[in-house]
Amino acid sequence: MGPRILRIGLPVMEKNDRLAARNRGLFEKSGLYAVNIIGSPGTGKTSLLEAMARVLGKSLVVIEGDVQTRRDAERIEKAGCTAFQIETGGACHLDAGMVSKAAAGLGLEGRGFEVLAIENVGNLICPSSYDLGEHTKLGILSVTEGDDKVLKYPSIFSRIGILVTSKIDLLPHVGFDIGRVEAECRSLNPDVLCFRTSATTGEGVGDLCRHILSERKRVLRA
Amino acid sequence: MGPRILRIGLPVMEKNDRLAARNRGLFEKSGLYAVNIIGSPGTGKTSLLEAMARVLGKSLVVIEGDVQTRRDAERIEKAGCTAFQIETGGACHLDAGMVSKAAAGLGLEGRGFEVLAIENVGNLICPSSYDLGEHTKLGILSVTEGDDKVLKYPSIFSRIGILVTSKIDLLPHVGFDIGRVEAECRSLNPDVLCFRTSATTGEGVGDLCRHILSERKRVLRA
Repeated sequence: MGPRILRIGLPVMEKNDRLAARNRGLFEKSGLYAVNIIGSPGTGKTSLLEAMARVLGKSLVVIEGDVQTRRDAERIEKAGCTAFQIETGGACHLDAGMVSKAAAGLGLEGRGFEVLAIENVGNLICPSSYDLGEHTKLGILSVTEGDDKVLKYPSIFSRIGILVTSKIDLLPHVGFDIGRVEAECRSLNPDVLCFRTSATTGEGVGDLCRHILSERKRVLRA
Repeated sequence: MGPRILRIGLPVMEKNDRLAARNRGLFEKSGLYAVNIIGSPGTGKTSLLEAMARVLGKSLVVIEGDVQTRRDAERIEKAGCTAFQIETGGACHLDAGMVSKAAAGLGLEGRGFEVLAIENVGNLICPSSYDLGEHTKLGILSVTEGDDKVLKYPSIFSRIGILVTSKIDLLPHVGFDIGRVEAECRSLNPDVLCFRTSATTGEGVGDLCRHILSERKRVLRA
């Protein structure tokens, strides 16, 4: 087998960005505000979505990205929402093409959906530079991961519109300074909005959903 | 700027594997057993190394891989061990070339080191296919990340020699079935050895270090 040659850089990103813009147009035409959710494996992305499903009900639709298994989509369906699973089969992030196919598979128009959550592959690095057609990126960091992560993974934390600190019910059992995390995130990214949530108790999830719904109104009105 | 062209696939991996084999020879010549530590951001890789430093003392030497910051190497040095920080500047995994340069920077020979721990970039996906010259890969998963991760990230969990379930002091506060995780890992990987640790209490860390030292004897004798 000879060397495989892959052209990367501008052409790949241009193609991705073109598809992402098309996705965004499609989402808006369908009345959807789209959120790209990025965090480590096990940071609580799917649990946050389950908690959001309890607030948003059937107006929430979810595209799940995983390297392998349909486990996350099954959890979302169990929580009462429509979900589509992308299995990347090795790829460490979603791209706009995968999301475009998932959106076609779901059929988004005329179904009363208002918020599209795209749960990216569990990874704090590779997903950060791929626009999927979202309106905002939501970065999630749990209090069990340590409060030193923002400056260690600046590529993602400088690009997010929303920072969610998750699993705050575990705060009494770990050393974690939320103020430090939020301040370091604002130092990279002055416009970030910060929420503190527990999927277990539901704390903070209502505020987060209200913010997303008000951003939806703002974007769709524009 | 025109398209950048990067040849990937065989040539890159061949070059990596050649360098990795050279690293491994150098490590053995220096009396070192090398462990490549792979886990998500915040899973407790550096905390495990701090706990191992309390057992192994100055016989432990550490190469730290991070996208950005020297924070982890500083923690290891504070724990009394020699450490070298690689900042990948964006790359989502270490490769054998980076480790080769770090090893040259450290100067491993004749310094009484016995165990080289290479802490990979926090990422459960991309590091799995790169041989760095280690003798074994150690995969680490904390009890706060959820017990569904093994089959979601099979590329890494099928390649590790050691599975560490970390933060077991937090077990009373989370739902996590260690038996399920270990069984799913063995289903991919029958020879994996499983340890359960708490860097906070030190539980399990002595057993892990004893296993690594006995593997060192076996490898260096061969």
